[in-house]
Amino acid sequence: MNVDFDLAAVYVSDAQYNRNIFFDTTPEAIRLYLLYNHWVLRIVVYAFIIADLALAIFEDPAVIPLPIWATTLIELVCLAVFTVRLVHYAKVIPRERFWKDPKNICIIVIILLSLVDMLIYGSLKATGYFAVRWSRVLRPLLLVNVTEGRQLRRAFRSIRNALPQILYVFLLFMFSVLMFSLMALKLFGKKGLTTNDGGAYFNDYLEIVFDLYVLVTTANSPDVMMPAYNSSVFFAVFFIIYILINTYIFMSVFLAVVYNNYKKYLKEEVRQLVRAKRHKMVRAFGVLQERKGEEGPVVTQASWNQLVRLVQPDISNAHRELLWSVSDDSNKGCIGKVAFVQLADLLNMQVIVVKSRPHPLQMWLPSLYLSSPSRLICRMVRHRLFVYAFDLIILVNAVFIGLDEENPLIANAEWAFLALYLLEILLKLYTFEPRAFFSKHEFWNWFDTVIVISALIATIINSVLKSSGGYTSRQILDIVFILRVLRLIRVVDSIKRFRAIINTLIKIGPTILTFGQLIVVVYYIFAMIGMELFKGKIRFFDAESTDPEKAFCGNPLLKNSLFAKHNYCKNNFNNVVSSFILLLELTVVNQCGFTAVTHVSARIFFVLFHIVVVIIIINIFIAFVLEAFFVEYTVDKSNLQSCLEKKIEELELGVKQDHLVGNLVDAMETDDNDMGTSESTKAKPALMFKIASKRYKTVDGLLQRMFEADLDPEDFAEDEDFDPNNPSNVTFPNPNFDSV
Amino acid sequence: MNVDFDLAAVYVSDAQYNRNIFFDTTPEAIRLYLLYNHWVLRIVVYAFIIADLALAIFEDPAVIPLPIWATTLIELVCLAVFTVRLVHYAKVIPRERFWKDPKNICIIVIILLSLVDMLIYGSLKATGYFAVRWSRVLRPLLLVNVTEGRQLRRAFRSIRNALPQILYVFLLFMFSVLMFSLMALKLFGKKGLTTNDGGAYFNDYLEIVFDLYVLVTTANSPDVMMPAYNSSVFFAVFFIIYILINTYIFMSVFLAVVYNNYKKYLKEEVRQLVRAKRHKMVRAFGVLQERKGEEGPVVTQASWNQLVRLVQPDISNAHRELLWSVSDDSNKGCIGKVAFVQLADLLNMQVIVVKSRPHPLQMWLPSLYLSSPSRLICRMVRHRLFVYAFDLIILVNAVFIGLDEENPLIANAEWAFLALYLLEILLKLYTFEPRAFFSKHEFWNWFDTVIVISALIATIINSVLKSSGGYTSRQILDIVFILRVLRLIRVVDSIKRFRAIINTLIKIGPTILTFGQLIVVVYYIFAMIGMELFKGKIRFFDAESTDPEKAFCGNPLLKNSLFAKHNYCKNNFNNVVSSFILLLELTVVNQCGFTAVTHVSARIFFVLFHIVVVIIIINIFIAFVLEAFFVEYTVDKSNLQSCLEKKIEELELGVKQDHLVGNLVDAMETDDNDMGTSESTKAKPALMFKIASKRYKTVDGLLQRMFEADLDPEDFAEDEDFDPNNPSNVTFPNPNFDSV
Repeated sequence: MNVDFDLAAVYVSDAQYNRNIFFDTTPEAIRLYLLYNHWVLRIVVYAFIIADLALAIFEDPAVIPLPIWATTLIELVCLAVFTVRLVHYAKVIPRERFWKDPKNICIIVIILLSLVDMLIYGSLKATGYFAVRWSRVLRPLLLVNVTEGRQLRRAFRSIRNALPQILYVFLLFMFSVLMFSLMALKLFGKKGLTTNDGGAYFNDYLEIVFDLYVLVTTANSPDVMMPAYNSSVFFAVFFIIYILINTYIFMSVFLAVVYNNYKKYLKEEVRQLVRAKRHKMVRAFGVLQERKGEEGPVVTQASWNQLVRLVQPDISNAHRELLWSVSDDSNKGCIGKVAFVQLADLLNMQVIVVKSRPHPLQMWLPSLYLSSPSRLICRMVRHRLFVYAFDLIILVNAVFIGLDEENPLIANAEWAFLALYLLEILLKLYTFEPRAFFSKHEFWNWFDTVIVISALIATIINSVLKSSGGYTSRQILDIVFILRVLRLIRVVDSIKRFRAIINTLIKIGPTILTFGQLIVVVYYIFAMIGMELFKGKIRFFDAESTDPEKAFCGNPLLKNSLFAKHNYCKNNFNNVVSSFILLLELTVVNQCGFTAVTHVSARIFFVLFHIVVVIIIINIFIAFVLEAFFVEYTVDKSNLQSCLEKKIEELELGVKQDHLVGNLVDAMETDDNDMGTSESTKAKPALMFKIASKRYKTVDGLLQRMFEADLDPEDFAEDEDFDPNNPSNVTFPNPNFDSV
Repeated sequence: MNVDFDLAAVYVSDAQYNRNIFFDTTPEAIRLYLLYNHWVLRIVVYAFIIADLALAIFEDPAVIPLPIWATTLIELVCLAVFTVRLVHYAKVIPRERFWKDPKNICIIVIILLSLVDMLIYGSLKATGYFAVRWSRVLRPLLLVNVTEGRQLRRAFRSIRNALPQILYVFLLFMFSVLMFSLMALKLFGKKGLTTNDGGAYFNDYLEIVFDLYVLVTTANSPDVMMPAYNSSVFFAVFFIIYILINTYIFMSVFLAVVYNNYKKYLKEEVRQLVRAKRHKMVRAFGVLQERKGEEGPVVTQASWNQLVRLVQPDISNAHRELLWSVSDDSNKGCIGKVAFVQLADLLNMQVIVVKSRPHPLQMWLPSLYLSSPSRLICRMVRHRLFVYAFDLIILVNAVFIGLDEENPLIANAEWAFLALYLLEILLKLYTFEPRAFFSKHEFWNWFDTVIVISALIATIINSVLKSSGGYTSRQILDIVFILRVLRLIRVVDSIKRFRAIINTLIKIGPTILTFGQLIVVVYYIFAMIGMELFKGKIRFFDAESTDPEKAFCGNPLLKNSLFAKHNYCKNNFNNVVSSFILLLELTVVNQCGFTAVTHVSARIFFVLFHIVVVIIIINIFIAFVLEAFFVEYTVDKSNLQSCLEKKIEELELGVKQDHLVGNLVDAMETDDNDMGTSESTKAKPALMFKIASKRYKTVDGLLQRMFEADLDPEDFAEDEDFDPNNPSNVTFPNPNFDSV
């Protein structure tokens, strides 16, 4: 029987985390599968992927040069790890499924190509030939194709699906740019105008196309129009119409198309996810079901308990009983399929268990802790004025930070502020139960404590260094400064409207991480190509350097160029770090002085980068932020959530919250004001719950919530005729992701 | 009885155009009201508003200086016209309503203040004192407060309503900028770094705040980070985090907040509009109703016909009969209230009447026109290959335009192309009925003809000038070039996907005009203030000028500044035209070299401009484009439209259309391909209809359509208990627009 529970637990866990892996159901395969999903192994894989990507720091052109044999060795180890992981995966799922899945093929191809490239590169280098490590471009694709890269694959899929629509708008946009360029050529080409640095103005068609394309990114505005505008006011009309049409209208249309398609495809994907989740839960139900009376198959509380304990070993008994009482609403001791299927969503709902314990001091020194001065202190700390007082202190502190810290008075004031902050934390610890104060969800308490203690340590180290040798470490001082300013952020938490906006931003945080990965993949590919194209073309000289080449970044082609004049020499592709920083700058403003040092065709690189990053990825990012805010504005709680809340209320185990103003408000975790005001004297139950209502453990949860309102409620119906004795006749839609 | 029809016609016409004016119902007042709404008077008012605004061109600092008495005289005439218009309005509506309406008060105040200002300015100037024409800032508010400025008032209202939400995000955003600035001050202030032009880097708090604010607009990226980045790679992290949070996340949040609020308030406004429209239609029904049988009050076809003829004198009989047959679906000769209320929407639906007439040549020379060579020509022109052939010619033409036009071969080729285009138009006129070819909705036919004929005329004038005196007029040549390139746009119409996108863009055109007015109001106010602050501070020198002051734009403060180096001298506030162009540049990229010539506090002007224009207005513009595209993607036809289409089909009077691919397709008016393929030989009815389905006569129509799906269908129900004998007990919600 134990194996069955394992199988059911795997199904539930897969449903909970939206894993779509079609594993073998033999006990051995299940054990392997559990191992495969173990968090340690997953972290190891990610660590090796990061190591593999980080190799670019050590490979030529390197930030920190390492010999080729060393980097090759590390890369071989990484590739070995990926191979082992893949073999493990192959053992878990049926063979024919393994070979059908494009992401496995993709990983195999990447590993093989990397090996081939290393061989070629090594032998070419050994014989002294010129060699390019072209397979480095493939490395970030590992991030996409590992089993855990679901979110990333989904993002790429939605981009790919939106591409045709984007393409049509892009072609129309390019047509418009080409037409305007032709008009500019005819209007300005023969006028004999000169640009600011004396070159001919608008007399080469391709130059014009490029200049006008860059104008869309606003990078060369108003420089590009100045010669024409200086010659006649009427010519400005040309540029105004151009900017209106191409910068404002077309860029908005891009956003509209990307947004619309992104939403459409994501909705479809999430619908499939939900369907797959229900399939898996129905399977788990099939494993555990028993016949009991005439009610059809049910799962008993005993089996359910064992299952939940297996799926989530760290769940508290109270929490588990709460979940059961939500599922088994009518208290029959067993639940049917419909109630069972909710389990995955119930487990994903973040219920915070608040244990109401007496303060440890009350246990150890009851007479002192319950004495009237002590009670006064507690009442004082809980008072709203206490919060206001410290907000005021923070503001005064901000002014002091802004003042010159070499004034001894101000330097000493810093110690006073530190002391005050420490006092605040100690007082709070005295008043509130320390374990509650430092519970997992009290973000601002943690934030305060960490910042204040680090600031204290750093300030002490700094003073010790200063007084001992008279020497001040710049790095430590910088850290001290940063910590001091960070402390001020806390003031935001006192203003409810701000807290609301910040909570929404925190909520979309995990998804921003997915975009972070997306950006890393794209940047990495462009950085690798850029380094091969432009490495060493531009050199950076230190501020102290007196090298005459400093005036033109070590490249005579840049003599008198604006690039050198603006002192942009450090914006180069000489190593992977400066490449990433440069690509970020290009994302913000697409300035491309680089084309001067190579062939004009290098501009294609910059235009391509702009299209991929700015037109597509940034727009998807904006679309996501928009959608997340609209969800916050409009979507109500899910049914299940209301059920859970109702149940908590029924059991009178709820934590009463201030009803906060504003639409966006969800101040559960950040509510230390709460503690400050609730001077409840009546006995509370020893255990209370609150729901971290709108924060989801997984990105999928947020996405699902986004589109919940649109999801077909009939989706569940089609699972009713699912045969639990023959689970293999339902095929999980394994996301078919063709290699990027 | 005639008066009743007038009254009803006024109600219907008000409902059709969403006018919310509460006029007196005496016959005299109605006559005055009709006069008030006459298009000539409205155009006159707008002409005088434009004249009043255009005065800025002639007033000091002037583009074309006029003596003060002349501009004063013109302004007095303008003010007189506005006063007359206002008096007229006061005669139309009840007195207490007139004084309750803030827009009337606003106009009176503007007129009075202008008079006071003119007096003060005149007397100060006469006595030789310094004087400022401060009332010029008020002028654009006339545009907002005239009766016809409904769209504009609505736009301002939705901005005002969204302000509190925007404010909270803005405060948080400013808090973030201030925190980062403080951190930057502490990190970089003492490092002794220098900017590119040798100044101290980041050592003044307010400077840093300003620099970092400008970084959000991306105008000074990457310059502002280069000194820190040059000093250490780690400092780049500071800027990366800053850009991520403030440029990407906060700007997206602004868009989200603006978008959401804009949508929310607009929806509410449109709901009120629809309700007011129904009220008015119910009143018109109350005027015309007769009791007939037991069906309750009805309107007979005769009254209905007379009403429609009054409301829309230019409607064709056939069109009117079609509308009646839609309203009176069961052919009873009279319609009830529900059917009658639809009339306003029916009249707003653009039905194109296609008269199938024989070609005039067929009437005059039937033997020639119906001969087989003539028929062959017609068949040829109708063939799809004919379109392709001319697309190819256009592309070849594009290449020729790109080549050097001083080559005689190419100059002559231009004549050949012109001849070909003329031939195309003549052939089409030969094949298709000329009145159908030049009907109101055949946009591309008109476009082609106008462009080709203008190009022909301009080219002839140009050659005549050239051959006679050897002198080529630059202006005429420029026009010829522009016309030549514009001709090429036609190729877009041949690609269905492009046509679809373009049609959507054309559809949102009228609303873009509302935004245009909004922008003009805001720009005008900023231009007036900017001119007072900065006029004459910077001088522009011609390219030929050898004045030594040219190197620093005539202001020693700009010596060696980047502003002068980039040759931006023409970006100044010296007159209203260059102010507008400069403000447009500031909208695109907020560079503000101006602060060097005045006090640092002038930066407030630029920051304020950025907040108002970029953060609020541009975001509303983007929101509108997004919404319009989503509507195109998702909204189906309205019920009424389907009814009308069904009726047209029933009567077999429909024009068959190609079923075009794509979501966005609405190719009615642009469908000249259609003609090329339909070689129908069977007799067509002499009259056919098609609905210009998605194009609306008024912006209100589009807005209403946008939110139609969300409109409460019960809105109508509450009108049922409306008492037609006592219309005054229903108060129209006159949009209460407090002065901006």
